[in-house]
Amino acid sequence: MIITLKEGASVEAVKRGLTGLGLWVASTEHSEDGVVHIVVGKGSTRVAASELRGIEGILRVSMPAEVHPKMDAQGPKVMVGDRAIGGGTPVLVSGPCAVESEEQIARIAAALARQGTTFLRGGAFKPRTSPYAFQGHGVTALAWLRSAADANNLKVVTEVLSEPDVSLVAEHADVLQIGSRNMQNYALLKTVGKAKRPVLLKRSMAATVEEWLLAGEYLLTHGASGVVLCERGIRGFDDTTRNLLDLGAVALLAHVHKLPVIVDPSHGTGRRDLVLPLAKAALAAGAAGVMIETHDRAAEAASDGAQALKPEELAELRPWLEGGIR
Amino acid sequence: MIITLKEGASVEAVKRGLTGLGLWVASTEHSEDGVVHIVVGKGSTRVAASELRGIEGILRVSMPAEVHPKMDAQGPKVMVGDRAIGGGTPVLVSGPCAVESEEQIARIAAALARQGTTFLRGGAFKPRTSPYAFQGHGVTALAWLRSAADANNLKVVTEVLSEPDVSLVAEHADVLQIGSRNMQNYALLKTVGKAKRPVLLKRSMAATVEEWLLAGEYLLTHGASGVVLCERGIRGFDDTTRNLLDLGAVALLAHVHKLPVIVDPSHGTGRRDLVLPLAKAALAAGAAGVMIETHDRAAEAASDGAQALKPEELAELRPWLEGGIR
Amino acid sequence: MIITLKEGASVEAVKRGLTGLGLWVASTEHSEDGVVHIVVGKGSTRVAASELRGIEGILRVSMPAEVHPKMDAQGPKVMVGDRAIGGGTPVLVSGPCAVESEEQIARIAAALARQGTTFLRGGAFKPRTSPYAFQGHGVTALAWLRSAADANNLKVVTEVLSEPDVSLVAEHADVLQIGSRNMQNYALLKTVGKAKRPVLLKRSMAATVEEWLLAGEYLLTHGASGVVLCERGIRGFDDTTRNLLDLGAVALLAHVHKLPVIVDPSHGTGRRDLVLPLAKAALAAGAAGVMIETHDRAAEAASDGAQALKPEELAELRPWLEGGIR
Amino acid sequence: MIITLKEGASVEAVKRGLTGLGLWVASTEHSEDGVVHIVVGKGSTRVAASELRGIEGILRVSMPAEVHPKMDAQGPKVMVGDRAIGGGTPVLVSGPCAVESEEQIARIAAALARQGTTFLRGGAFKPRTSPYAFQGHGVTALAWLRSAADANNLKVVTEVLSEPDVSLVAEHADVLQIGSRNMQNYALLKTVGKAKRPVLLKRSMAATVEEWLLAGEYLLTHGASGVVLCERGIRGFDDTTRNLLDLGAVALLAHVHKLPVIVDPSHGTGRRDLVLPLAKAALAAGAAGVMIETHDRAAEAASDGAQALKPEELAELRPWLEGGIR
Repeated sequence: MIITLKEGASVEAVKRGLTGLGLWVASTEHSEDGVVHIVVGKGSTRVAASELRGIEGILRVSMPAEVHPKMDAQGPKVMVGDRAIGGGTPVLVSGPCAVESEEQIARIAAALARQGTTFLRGGAFKPRTSPYAFQGHGVTALAWLRSAADANNLKVVTEVLSEPDVSLVAEHADVLQIGSRNMQNYALLKTVGKAKRPVLLKRSMAATVEEWLLAGEYLLTHGASGVVLCERGIRGFDDTTRNLLDLGAVALLAHVHKLPVIVDPSHGTGRRDLVLPLAKAALAAGAAGVMIETHDRAAEAASDGAQALKPEELAELRPWLEGGIR
Repeated sequence: MIITLKEGASVEAVKRGLTGLGLWVASTEHSEDGVVHIVVGKGSTRVAASELRGIEGILRVSMPAEVHPKMDAQGPKVMVGDRAIGGGTPVLVSGPCAVESEEQIARIAAALARQGTTFLRGGAFKPRTSPYAFQGHGVTALAWLRSAADANNLKVVTEVLSEPDVSLVAEHADVLQIGSRNMQNYALLKTVGKAKRPVLLKRSMAATVEEWLLAGEYLLTHGASGVVLCERGIRGFDDTTRNLLDLGAVALLAHVHKLPVIVDPSHGTGRRDLVLPLAKAALAAGAAGVMIETHDRAAEAASDGAQALKPEELAELRPWLEGGIR
Repeated sequence: MIITLKEGASVEAVKRGLTGLGLWVASTEHSEDGVVHIVVGKGSTRVAASELRGIEGILRVSMPAEVHPKMDAQGPKVMVGDRAIGGGTPVLVSGPCAVESEEQIARIAAALARQGTTFLRGGAFKPRTSPYAFQGHGVTALAWLRSAADANNLKVVTEVLSEPDVSLVAEHADVLQIGSRNMQNYALLKTVGKAKRPVLLKRSMAATVEEWLLAGEYLLTHGASGVVLCERGIRGFDDTTRNLLDLGAVALLAHVHKLPVIVDPSHGTGRRDLVLPLAKAALAAGAAGVMIETHDRAAEAASDGAQALKPEELAELRPWLEGGIR
Repeated sequence: MIITLKEGASVEAVKRGLTGLGLWVASTEHSEDGVVHIVVGKGSTRVAASELRGIEGILRVSMPAEVHPKMDAQGPKVMVGDRAIGGGTPVLVSGPCAVESEEQIARIAAALARQGTTFLRGGAFKPRTSPYAFQGHGVTALAWLRSAADANNLKVVTEVLSEPDVSLVAEHADVLQIGSRNMQNYALLKTVGKAKRPVLLKRSMAATVEEWLLAGEYLLTHGASGVVLCERGIRGFDDTTRNLLDLGAVALLAHVHKLPVIVDPSHGTGRRDLVLPLAKAALAAGAAGVMIETHDRAAEAASDGAQALKPEELAELRPWLEGGIR
């Protein structure tokens, strides 16, 4: 936002007026012919242009052009069949990191349904840092996941990694997940958009909020029925937690942009003993839900067992999910 | 933590056992004579060595030496006179960024006391990025702050910037604050430690949790009666929020290290519209309290007015501070 | 690396011995039965285990398992037809951000050939942050690029964004480029690997050196004939330069890992006035070449014109490329 | 920089004109009454306002107010007695991390003088992360350092940590060093400024270039005779190098701000095997000199021995320091 001052206006007085409304001054700029502009810091409190009218000395207010109009217009609620993510009671998405067998996912799904989970997650295709690590059971796992969900009246959220797999994944899943490493894989975003489904879009570890919203814009532009954002921790400089969970971005997206954001404290911390406190913190910050990795036999998990909770540990989140707290 | 395996033990089986307990494997190392060690990632879930005994194939468990024994021994509660920070009901620390006049601080202190504040904050000496910015009213402001607090039965928290000022600040304040930019100003830490007072130690914008704890160790080693940590946002790569509030570190310090941490969402976000959601998130994550900048006339604030809340806006935190939620 | 001490050895003496060889101590760990291990920091100077034999008090040295054996074995030189990248005289890769027309690329290619360029770059498929930005002329541009290169005896480097495009791009290009945003797009890495070509692998903005090497391992595992790494700036916290060029990583990969690394100072800084000093710095640090965006009519560039140099400005790099300086 | 457009001007045409000069567009802003402003990204190539006159459609150019006028006016050369840092042949600053004994510093100083060192560094007061680590020999070491330098016709650079020590350090040193952890210790900056000496100002691990320049402004405002900046690595997310050496900032300060910057690749990498390549890279990027830790008996070093080179290893830098290369 650029504030152009009237000739002769007091720069200091206008700055105080802006500050009083919660706006930061990023810079003050002067033209050779004496015009003074104040540039408002882009991380400032959001204030409508009309609120500035009361400040003496302002000639003109200029606002930045919209860069992601479809995301700005989407609103806080995304429908998945008859269930909503956002706009009401927060949702619990849970399940194992990887779908390991028909029996495993059926057993875990049943346990989770008893704990208030309404969305079942589980990886069929796994993006792994090393080519030598387990890459998921692929299409077979998709069918297991779907039946486990159906048997327990759950919706399915699962990741799609590859353009040729999109239609197959869309057959089995209710929500298509774009993983963190693919947030700016534009070819995949376009193909997934064309499936016309709701998409869970994980934030890349180095993405700014603007870049994340623009990735969402790719999805909506190509046809996605809705975009739910998912914060899963960004890259930080301290390895005492595996990633750096950015709940400031969650509050910003929820309260200022009015968009649905799910938080994944399992990847966000990588350590089981911090998952529940941060799940609560996420909900307090305004998250539309939490996504938590669960496994009933962590020692047998094919991946990420170290951060998995037992299904019954989710009980601690009950009062938070039932909406009594916010 | 280093796990040394028995000769012939299955590396995969031991890894699964560790994973089942929530431990990450950072690396597997082999000696020329066939000994295998597994190094546990330092950001893993904290697990006692005794819990590892049940895993088949482990010969020996080695643990890192203590590097900050006094911080490790301190415990979750720091007494400030007869009031505790940590170990029970969370505290509310609030007040203006800078003490601007006797009247200003008296007026705000009275309003805050009515909202449940028990600790009054306010800057007498201000660390400012530019040498041309307002540097605080110094010693005069200390006296104003003290009287405003006394008139409302509040404790005083205020920052000390300079070694020669320590004794003076200690005369007027209950808690000495070390600012973010001075977290590794070891000369100041030593001098402040010698004042034998409780200290609020803000995290430097680039400090790891270990460096922060070691700064606390300096304070305790030199005599501080207690150290309360304060998370106020670290440096991130995205300017849509001014700083990056690291609630993962807060959860870690509160739940794993069992230390008192206060969170400052005002500096942590720099924007008024995110302060309350993040204050709640901080408490949900395990913070021992929140520190919030407040001003009743933000447009007149000498500094940081853009992030200040009105005293009455703190009312929204009441249920959180009274301990009904956690 | 884990150093296990002999019973009764002096921990301090062993630490001094390690330090003398350039090794950092990350931690010292003790078992209940009195065994002491020293863990060497993973960012230490690389030292062969044999060099440690001279230190009194060491019982055993354990080394981490190889995690990217094919990259470790590749060596410093990658052949592109009859030309080498790495292992000798540094190469100059240049060309416009996007291939805009047959005439544009032909004109620029001719000018670059006169300046010592041997590899022509140019985008046919462009990964753009916004869905509303120019996405490249696609397959048509590939043909223009190939003819412009052939007419001037240049090799072609161009980015492939999408799995279905890989065979098409492989028909026209000598080196397939994986862009920064796709460094961990494992589906694409696998498909590109199968084309059995040399690949230029740009570092993701948040990738550690290990993650980057593992992405290279995906390519080699699936058949790539060679991997040339490309540093193009990582995400930093300061917006005075667009990205943060990590020449420390370049020196590490060149001198310690002995791998070919190209540096892209155009994206690394985003500003024309810093490109040449940083290109020289890259070569001084050990880069196998530099990749520089050039355009003869920057004001007409379809993208990234602000960082493009004129072809004739590359003349300043001549003495550096002819190998007289290092 | 804000570009205000003439009524009816083509926004696209003006953007192309700006791009042609190397300027990025950060945002385009519109007022309700139809005025259009283009905000130029602050990390753009530096271009004088006069160069913009040739672009059709520009009504007015506004420039940001100066925020560090004294630094902007200083120029590229700082005199230390009769020797210059900056503005000509680069300087070599070297010496051990800590001054350990009279004999040690005398011996090393003599060896360094033979290698072209003109400035001797060595710590008398050491800022250490742990209170239990060696804190330096203090005032005694200052005298040893001074005599070792005098015996070899070297200038002395040493760090001052504490306000009460400033006058004492100023008696013994030619250049006062402010360490990275104290870059925003404003009390110390003010006291050091008053000593009216040249100051070597290390960059804080999380400081932006602007914050660094403002810290320099504190020094000049309070009387420092000159400020030499020192890049020593910032905080990064990858622990394969200890810190992240930001040579982009060095090029920016040297070529755009025209200020003297010294680079410290010893702390910048923490590993001996990368020091020389990065020292050369620093000089190629425009550094006014390099500061390198050296020790002739690294295994005996009281601190940081792992990154120290032997004095004779500096010989490799000779051609770079004699100015033949740039």
